Amino acid sequence: MHKIKTLASDNYAGALPEMIEAITAANTGHAVSYGNDTVTGQSLKIFSKHFGEVADVRFVFNGTGANVLSLSTAVDPFCSVLCADCAHMYVDESTSPESFTGCRLIPIKTNADGKITVEAIEEKIIRVGDEHHPQVRILSITQPTEYGTLYSLKEIRAISDLLKQHNMYLHMDGARIFNAAVALNCTLKEMTSGSGVDIVSVGGTKVGMLFGEAVAIFNRALVRNLKFRHKRSMQMASKNRFIACQFQTLLEKKLWYPSAKNANNMAALLHEQIKTIPEITVTKPVQVNAVFATIPRSWTQKLQDDKFFYVWDELTNEVRWMCAFDTSKEDIDEFVNTIKKLT
Amino acid sequence: MHKIKTLASDNYAGALPEMIEAITAANTGHAVSYGNDTVTGQSLKIFSKHFGEVADVRFVFNGTGANVLSLSTAVDPFCSVLCADCAHMYVDESTSPESFTGCRLIPIKTNADGKITVEAIEEKIIRVGDEHHPQVRILSITQPTEYGTLYSLKEIRAISDLLKQHNMYLHMDGARIFNAAVALNCTLKEMTSGSGVDIVSVGGTKVGMLFGEAVAIFNRALVRNLKFRHKRSMQMASKNRFIACQFQTLLEKKLWYPSAKNANNMAALLHEQIKTIPEITVTKPVQVNAVFATIPRSWTQKLQDDKFFYVWDELTNEVRWMCAFDTSKEDIDEFVNTIKKLT
Amino acid sequence: MHKIKTLASDNYAGALPEMIEAITAANTGHAVSYGNDTVTGQSLKIFSKHFGEVADVRFVFNGTGANVLSLSTAVDPFCSVLCADCAHMYVDESTSPESFTGCRLIPIKTNADGKITVEAIEEKIIRVGDEHHPQVRILSITQPTEYGTLYSLKEIRAISDLLKQHNMYLHMDGARIFNAAVALNCTLKEMTSGSGVDIVSVGGTKVGMLFGEAVAIFNRALVRNLKFRHKRSMQMASKNRFIACQFQTLLEKKLWYPSAKNANNMAALLHEQIKTIPEITVTKPVQVNAVFATIPRSWTQKLQDDKFFYVWDELTNEVRWMCAFDTSKEDIDEFVNTIKKLT
Amino acid sequence: MHKIKTLASDNYAGALPEMIEAITAANTGHAVSYGNDTVTGQSLKIFSKHFGEVADVRFVFNGTGANVLSLSTAVDPFCSVLCADCAHMYVDESTSPESFTGCRLIPIKTNADGKITVEAIEEKIIRVGDEHHPQVRILSITQPTEYGTLYSLKEIRAISDLLKQHNMYLHMDGARIFNAAVALNCTLKEMTSGSGVDIVSVGGTKVGMLFGEAVAIFNRALVRNLKFRHKRSMQMASKNRFIACQFQTLLEKKLWYPSAKNANNMAALLHEQIKTIPEITVTKPVQVNAVFATIPRSWTQKLQDDKFFYVWDELTNEVRWMCAFDTSKEDIDEFVNTIKKLT
Repeated sequence: MHKIKTLASDNYAGALPEMIEAITAANTGHAVSYGNDTVTGQSLKIFSKHFGEVADVRFVFNGTGANVLSLSTAVDPFCSVLCADCAHMYVDESTSPESFTGCRLIPIKTNADGKITVEAIEEKIIRVGDEHHPQVRILSITQPTEYGTLYSLKEIRAISDLLKQHNMYLHMDGARIFNAAVALNCTLKEMTSGSGVDIVSVGGTKVGMLFGEAVAIFNRALVRNLKFRHKRSMQMASKNRFIACQFQTLLEKKLWYPSAKNANNMAALLHEQIKTIPEITVTKPVQVNAVFATIPRSWTQKLQDDKFFYVWDELTNEVRWMCAFDTSKEDIDEFVNTIKKLT
Repeated sequence: MHKIKTLASDNYAGALPEMIEAITAANTGHAVSYGNDTVTGQSLKIFSKHFGEVADVRFVFNGTGANVLSLSTAVDPFCSVLCADCAHMYVDESTSPESFTGCRLIPIKTNADGKITVEAIEEKIIRVGDEHHPQVRILSITQPTEYGTLYSLKEIRAISDLLKQHNMYLHMDGARIFNAAVALNCTLKEMTSGSGVDIVSVGGTKVGMLFGEAVAIFNRALVRNLKFRHKRSMQMASKNRFIACQFQTLLEKKLWYPSAKNANNMAALLHEQIKTIPEITVTKPVQVNAVFATIPRSWTQKLQDDKFFYVWDELTNEVRWMCAFDTSKEDIDEFVNTIKKLT
Repeated sequence: MHKIKTLASDNYAGALPEMIEAITAANTGHAVSYGNDTVTGQSLKIFSKHFGEVADVRFVFNGTGANVLSLSTAVDPFCSVLCADCAHMYVDESTSPESFTGCRLIPIKTNADGKITVEAIEEKIIRVGDEHHPQVRILSITQPTEYGTLYSLKEIRAISDLLKQHNMYLHMDGARIFNAAVALNCTLKEMTSGSGVDIVSVGGTKVGMLFGEAVAIFNRALVRNLKFRHKRSMQMASKNRFIACQFQTLLEKKLWYPSAKNANNMAALLHEQIKTIPEITVTKPVQVNAVFATIPRSWTQKLQDDKFFYVWDELTNEVRWMCAFDTSKEDIDEFVNTIKKLT
Repeated sequence: MHKIKTLASDNYAGALPEMIEAITAANTGHAVSYGNDTVTGQSLKIFSKHFGEVADVRFVFNGTGANVLSLSTAVDPFCSVLCADCAHMYVDESTSPESFTGCRLIPIKTNADGKITVEAIEEKIIRVGDEHHPQVRILSITQPTEYGTLYSLKEIRAISDLLKQHNMYLHMDGARIFNAAVALNCTLKEMTSGSGVDIVSVGGTKVGMLFGEAVAIFNRALVRNLKFRHKRSMQMASKNRFIACQFQTLLEKKLWYPSAKNANNMAALLHEQIKTIPEITVTKPVQVNAVFATIPRSWTQKLQDDKFFYVWDELTNEVRWMCAFDTSKEDIDEFVNTIKKLT
């Protein structure tokens, strides 16, 4: 365990104490297993309240599970899935999507901000009805993107509109969806169901849960056979109440807000303090809880010794500094001091 | 939540308080994600100490994940897996094994005790080398079985010996392995690596963890590419320390012993108290924490109203009464009283 | 090549000369590839004429392709397929069904004649709606069975009726369907669409084609997305006219009738001549083109030297003698003479 | 059937008469099924003679089958396959590769000639050993490419050398391999085993076979379990002699040479005659049997009425004119006359 906190990832952070409290509270007596307990039973109502009316919501263990289950609701095995060439599902989830759905993932080159544009999507919607070619069926955007940038509500809506014209579905990988909601100063509903999203992976782990993600479906067409797909995905918890109770606390007590807000704020603070350092070039807009920057290669090891982080691009020595719910002003100050000693 | 406890399943029970304490203790500062943390780092040593030398150990989220990952280490996609026709992986894990491995599951008819015999296995080892037929590669036994019965160490060894003669592997589905160890009064090592088991699914959830199972591999031949298979299985936790710490506590403090022992004892107590009631026929040897019995059909609803349980076989009205770590003598007494009122 | 013919299998036989003639005739100029040629274009009409109105028909390369494509039209990946424990798709098609559909094949124990009974099916239709268990969706019968026995039209209808009650589909593996039609003295239509079959694998190879099988679908519910499933199955021929023209000749000139009739007659002749030989016990009703019998173990090699055949069951020395379109009276006489010399 | 020949594809052409003769000759008596016949038995020797020593050779039905079986010999399910973004396996084989291997296909942007460069490959060999990312294992090149261009022997060797450094395999999709051999004026051996190719899909259909392709393996590491993979791929013919005899004739009588040479020559002739027409821009080097060119949009329909062909790129009105073994000088003259009338 790193006593001194890192800037590696928001999943290096532990869990919010409130999550453990919620589990402790839920740990009373017996509960029906596999999601038929009363805590889970309240989820549909709770998610509908916060995300807009959901047709169904399911809990899974991790982000890959959430994404793969989401995709599986929309595709036949002869289909393809469009996603960013830097999407987590494309670069960090092994071959789980292909293995479980049998479908192809087709990467879309993103713009300078790591975002998919309407024009780029249009180029990929080809050969519809031609059995020799995988049939595009669903597109996944990550909000915020892997580069810590944001689709505006208008951009999400434009993508959704395009997809609807082509009978396609829009999935949002919301592993850090709460950071996005804080940054856009909008409701979860406005960013998802309100913007034409059909299905969303709601990330619990990175915002402070022990484990657990949710798949919330807005489009009724995707709900059919959901429980069967859920079970088959190996992502159905027997003691499901222990995921449900964390999400309940997170949403009902709006715990996600201070957690995500702090992470975002600390990234902004870091950005503010380093942006004028001439050796450092910030490479992406800092919109949520990550700062991407190129730094002198000689600095890397020394800075990692202070607070560990990942080199994102070996070629350019672009690094990623990621803040979490528990990153403090002192952490940032310490890190900036270390940087300044190197200048 | 059932305030009044059930006899439905050991996964209706919550978590041992010590598990929440372990998580609280592990929730300090940052930890490297995806199993590269220091808590997880101790697992190989800990599992080796208790199970005999393990070649590798991996943590997963649930039992299906443990079983499917286990099978995937041994098979090529043209292979088959032998298992009991009542095995959890055959009757309660959807098509996850086929979906993830591409292999066939071949059911073996079990004997009256729900166990696979050496003779039954021999009948299924056919057409080796014939490309038209799925090639048998691994057999899975469940210890204790789905009927709460036990393979003796000698029986496990005999099965392993047979499989070795045919270049096959032996997997043990140990969803309730601790109940078996208590009942057989043997070490975990004696029952697994010491009896020729190649790979075991170690169940944490049913013995009192919040969630989490382990795959422990004894046979080095099965370790190759394990980390890739683990990731692909969608069963790799980012905050892996929260599974590792529970197993660490469970094993190092031998918490599994009182937990499993209580469950077994309560089943024995229940058995003792009802075995002479003429309307009830106990259908399986009561060896661990379950009592299988046929009861008058008119009793079912009334008894379920007291403490919920499952009807296992609608045809014969065979029911399963399953005890957990938290089943108390009072629970059993209450239930037996309810029964006696019906006689 | 065996100059002296065998009793091994009807796929040891070559092709009917008329098939080569049909190909030669179709080999004129260019034709649109992948089934969009004019020869293939007539198939729907031709198959409808002979089998009853087909919703669609597709050509594939071999029997496994036909069966797997058939199953794929009906199932979701969380489903199961019921079939005989001796079905070709269960014992002789590797793991292709599982690999391509992700589903489970559930074997049904057949009766003494190698047939599935209504009672046996009913026992397997369980846990419908329970997401933990693979969901039964389709059943496959083989007509004639692997043991050369026949379902009567009434038996097929009874199976179909049962399946319809449970929203299941009926597939017929008709690898030797023409032998069945001859033996039952019924039309192809009466035996398929007329008896409630939803989808049929029509075997061309065993009746005398060079290669090629068809999947004919009667139930419109199974046609959706067919072309995509066909292409994905790797069973779509670029020069599709060379399969279509063989089926056209086979059906329009009713070439299947003399071909199948001869094979059946020769099996009947063989049966007639050996049934009173005391050392031989005919084990199955001889209804189409195969004779199953137990013979003295010491005879096997000597008889195989005359005309090769397969030992079906090593344990009992049950052998299979299978006749083809080119088996002659002389072949049978020769073989019976060889037998008689051994008595 | 198009009496007047097309420029659509070499699979619009029928079969070489010699192929039908070969089948007729092979159609004598009985032959062991599934590739254990004597004709197939000679294949290893024959392929070794022409392609260099092959470790094994297997016959399949079509190109998708050949490619997918080839890939399956090299990959584990957590792997990825590199190929051109215009490769047939990427754009014209549905999701068969993913469905059958579970792996990801990663597209490589090709250069102006539709070829993969060493530099482009190097950029894709990333994150080796990182379980979160699909592991690159094999690369497929198409020779000639989908654009009718050729890798030189030196280029193939350079790619192979790079791959060997990274423990990767080189697959060649040789759907039109014979056209390449004619054009490069080299032996089949020089272009495959002699240039570091590990496994090759040898195309029979497009050069004039009725149906049938081969998978020839040079690298012994890929032969393991081949027969099992072959059967599972649903690409094993029961009357396998009818594929084997076509390949035998094709190779032993060097029938592929005049067939491929004519197709190449006719494309060269067409190119020669149209290259100075100002409205036409030839877009790719004409190296084998295809001419790619942009033409006035208003010409398309009129030219297609003469001899049908495909528009390759709707955006630029780039068309593909493809010659076959049966394209004649008169066909080209006719077509060029039709063009000239439009100028």
